[in-house]
Amino acid sequence: MAITTIAVLLFDDFETLDAMGPAEVFGCVPDCRLRFISRSGGEVISSHGVTVVTEPAGVPRFEALLIPGGQGTRRLCADSEYLEWLQRQVGLARLCMTVCTGSALLAATPLLDGLRATSNKRAFDWVTSLNDRVLWQPRARWVRDGKFYTSSGISSGIDMALQAVADFRGREQALEIAERMEYLWNDDAQNDPFAR
Amino acid sequence: MAITTIAVLLFDDFETLDAMGPAEVFGCVPDCRLRFISRSGGEVISSHGVTVVTEPAGVPRFEALLIPGGQGTRRLCADSEYLEWLQRQVGLARLCMTVCTGSALLAATPLLDGLRATSNKRAFDWVTSLNDRVLWQPRARWVRDGKFYTSSGISSGIDMALQAVADFRGREQALEIAERMEYLWNDDAQNDPFAR
Repeated sequence: MAITTIAVLLFDDFETLDAMGPAEVFGCVPDCRLRFISRSGGEVISSHGVTVVTEPAGVPRFEALLIPGGQGTRRLCADSEYLEWLQRQVGLARLCMTVCTGSALLAATPLLDGLRATSNKRAFDWVTSLNDRVLWQPRARWVRDGKFYTSSGISSGIDMALQAVADFRGREQALEIAERMEYLWNDDAQNDPFAR
Repeated sequence: MAITTIAVLLFDDFETLDAMGPAEVFGCVPDCRLRFISRSGGEVISSHGVTVVTEPAGVPRFEALLIPGGQGTRRLCADSEYLEWLQRQVGLARLCMTVCTGSALLAATPLLDGLRATSNKRAFDWVTSLNDRVLWQPRARWVRDGKFYTSSGISSGIDMALQAVADFRGREQALEIAERMEYLWNDDAQNDPFAR
């Protein structure tokens, strides 16, 4: 599967590193382009005050979609109109990745029903309470099932993104990017030092 | 020393994670505010296509200044007007931190003369060639000397930022933030797995 465009879905109060860690990884992949989108486009502000200019969803075509977590997911999980729109966006992607409570947004839809998934261990009780048809994994740095990758807390998105690069572009490419980033890649999805 | 406002200095072609890794860390410090600035304000685009809205320098007051690296530093290191302006900004800060080739910008001024500093190990030959009066450290995850913290490659900025939190807010605060980020902090500045 050729992944050449990855859309990063942003919303107000997204967690900064959830989006920007994987963005650094994918931004280093040759012939891979990032697009930053939101439902309506325009300026979106992270939990830490980073104002990012986004394109409206529907403009860029993409093969993969990355969904960060953050405080903003709490509000959106109760917004049925947003969730219906989100399901359509995920339907357009051949690959969908979440970081942290980004998986809460998917769990608030039927998209993960019957699939294995994980989330931030500090928010685990809340996220898992949203949907008991998801096969929640309490000990996992990240999980891949079907077209979904879900990762654990904030920095785990970097490890997951490197694994996605390994899966689709080869392990050598992932190792090269980790080296370039001077990043010690935790490349074992089962090695979750933050599991309860 | 009370650090309550940290300015993140952005410029076109900054390296995404150089800025956003430490931003995540400092953004998690209670009673600490981030401001994103550039010389003239307005939209700034990272190497990976992240468009960030910045305030013009001179608007927010700050105690600490964070300078990322990235391809954009190559051009700015040859821009004497920018470098003179940068020196004035650094002069306003009680604490100045660089990530990756952010230290190249300081090395292109006399600010680091006689001080110990480091930089990205892949760009080390270029950065060190800019100024032989700096006491360059080839094996260091980060270095603190005087009011300057300089860190190594991209992801090292997260380790350095956590150390700065430990220095100014206490080690417990730094450990709490690393745990919240589910990040395995390399807290030993001498542990540099990427040194040549």
